[in-house]
Amino acid sequence: MKKIIILGSTGSVGKQSLEVIRQYPDRFKVIGLAALGEDIESQINEFKPEVVYVKDKTVKANQVSSLEELVGYPKADTIIVAIPGTVALKAVFKAIEENKQILLATKEISVVAGSLLEEKIKQHKAEVLPLDSEHSAIFQCLKGENRDRIKRLILTCSGGPFREKKRKDLEKVTKEQVLNHPVWKMGPKISIDSATLMNKGFEVIEAHYLFDIPYEKIDVIVHPQGVIHSMVEFTDGNIKALLSNPTMKHPIQYALFYPERSLINPWNNLELKDLTFEKPDRETFPCLDYAYMAGKIGGTMPAVLNYADEALIEMFLQGKIKYLDIPRIIKELLDKHENITNPSLEDILKVKQWVNNNI
Amino acid sequence: MKKIIILGSTGSVGKQSLEVIRQYPDRFKVIGLAALGEDIESQINEFKPEVVYVKDKTVKANQVSSLEELVGYPKADTIIVAIPGTVALKAVFKAIEENKQILLATKEISVVAGSLLEEKIKQHKAEVLPLDSEHSAIFQCLKGENRDRIKRLILTCSGGPFREKKRKDLEKVTKEQVLNHPVWKMGPKISIDSATLMNKGFEVIEAHYLFDIPYEKIDVIVHPQGVIHSMVEFTDGNIKALLSNPTMKHPIQYALFYPERSLINPWNNLELKDLTFEKPDRETFPCLDYAYMAGKIGGTMPAVLNYADEALIEMFLQGKIKYLDIPRIIKELLDKHENITNPSLEDILKVKQWVNNNI
Repeated sequence: MKKIIILGSTGSVGKQSLEVIRQYPDRFKVIGLAALGEDIESQINEFKPEVVYVKDKTVKANQVSSLEELVGYPKADTIIVAIPGTVALKAVFKAIEENKQILLATKEISVVAGSLLEEKIKQHKAEVLPLDSEHSAIFQCLKGENRDRIKRLILTCSGGPFREKKRKDLEKVTKEQVLNHPVWKMGPKISIDSATLMNKGFEVIEAHYLFDIPYEKIDVIVHPQGVIHSMVEFTDGNIKALLSNPTMKHPIQYALFYPERSLINPWNNLELKDLTFEKPDRETFPCLDYAYMAGKIGGTMPAVLNYADEALIEMFLQGKIKYLDIPRIIKELLDKHENITNPSLEDILKVKQWVNNNI
Repeated sequence: MKKIIILGSTGSVGKQSLEVIRQYPDRFKVIGLAALGEDIESQINEFKPEVVYVKDKTVKANQVSSLEELVGYPKADTIIVAIPGTVALKAVFKAIEENKQILLATKEISVVAGSLLEEKIKQHKAEVLPLDSEHSAIFQCLKGENRDRIKRLILTCSGGPFREKKRKDLEKVTKEQVLNHPVWKMGPKISIDSATLMNKGFEVIEAHYLFDIPYEKIDVIVHPQGVIHSMVEFTDGNIKALLSNPTMKHPIQYALFYPERSLINPWNNLELKDLTFEKPDRETFPCLDYAYMAGKIGGTMPAVLNYADEALIEMFLQGKIKYLDIPRIIKELLDKHENITNPSLEDILKVKQWVNNNI
């Protein structure tokens, strides 16, 4: 019986994780929940966690006072990390130190603190499994393969709601248009990141750290149907691809069952239809290149990318800036920032303040 | 240094095997050749095999008197089996007994003698690696995976030169039309088998034996671009696919390097374009179902399928029968044959005579 804590149980990935867990009551037990959103009381009633972390102190449950304390709960062996942003950063480090298995959905953590995370994982020989559909696909394609034989990782990208649009078409984009993703139903932050392709940029940085692959060997291809979740090209010219219906429940289920596979598929089977591919339009969606740039420079640059993006999306949702201001101001901040190479966790966390002061 | 004997070195797969070997003179050495076709003298001059088996006794080389003697040559460790038909059947059994690694292109051998072959392989713990692009793709997709988690194998099929044609369009088909395959350039027998989809039917039977999978778990899907070479669907709903440019040199290279992969790709890289899928038209191409039927019945039925097909293709090439007579007469012979369950090798070889007497 796998004993699981979910950080971010009321978000999109958190809810879908609970849907998967609900299918397999004999294998998985929810031992702890943390959520900053609504619905936590109904989750507590259904899954009866032994321990929770919530903002509302009137919620009837065994409450702890921090995410770090939650992940340290001795009975838990697996932590699903699905809180957007970097709120759970220290909790993830703590969970690694406590030898918990980590199922990682929050890509911002790899983006801002990738090299520290990589170091920590190596030091504690921690098992970190990806929950993102792209990284799960790559992880599955690499099973049984020698990593020295990777020629490149090919991350697929649905193209978001503005695929085939040009820069000039995007001047008057509304909040509603951005939030209407063609393939994936997700929270507002990641939906906007999918529209700007910043989400794919973050995934490139995450792939760099998770699979220890140089940026030159990571490509992005637009694949609107979202059926091939990513691919690996090997040195000998063969390419492995992973396909499934586009639901996060597949990579969640894969990680929960790893290293085995579930004997059943409780979700819809994939029906094979036409699959198409395009090169990403890097002029209309410059965030993708900003992510490669920040990633290659390293140091605190990816943290600038992340915190600038986070703050600007919030401003856009509040109606304070226009859609095209998001990439423009990110670029300005990246240009202005004085990079710190080999930053400490404190250096990284200070970047948030620097971004807020300079935005 | 891998020391290789090629059975069928002047055929399409044999020549392409030599092209691959030519790329890696430090890893692979041609130690023996057998060929019934032309060009053998130029191959002997270039690769200087220590031993050959040819029909023409005037060829200057160290000749042996049978395929069995050739594969038993002590210095050889790997046998590429690429002679069409079942000529090499006994030689393959001999090679397994001699603990040689087998790279198998000749699907007729698995078709006529699948269960005997399977038994022999288990008995000698022999390593038999597929050279067909479809079976190589499945073999690669299964790497690192638990075979208990296979939901189904999905063999892809280009559809051949008559895809989208209906039965009535095929009444007056000429030899030239049949031999003009849209994706693969191959010998005449396999080109005609590709047009009738009998080739795919043979591959279904071969997959059944190579991967020890029931026929109910083997599907065929038409994929005209020939870029996805086959797929495996797992019980949890994930599908792995293998892609490369459609050249036999990829699966040949994969098998030669197995369990590693070559560090280089000497052939063209795949450029991802639109990929489409269709259900096979089982009314227009009934040979596919005849193969499933013969395979499921087992015994000597697959041998009837194979020898009938072989004889009828020869008759079609000689202008003695029409294209649509091939499936029609195959069906008649399958219906007429009294099946022998658990046949011996002799029972199987006698089927050829029975077919010739009854055609």
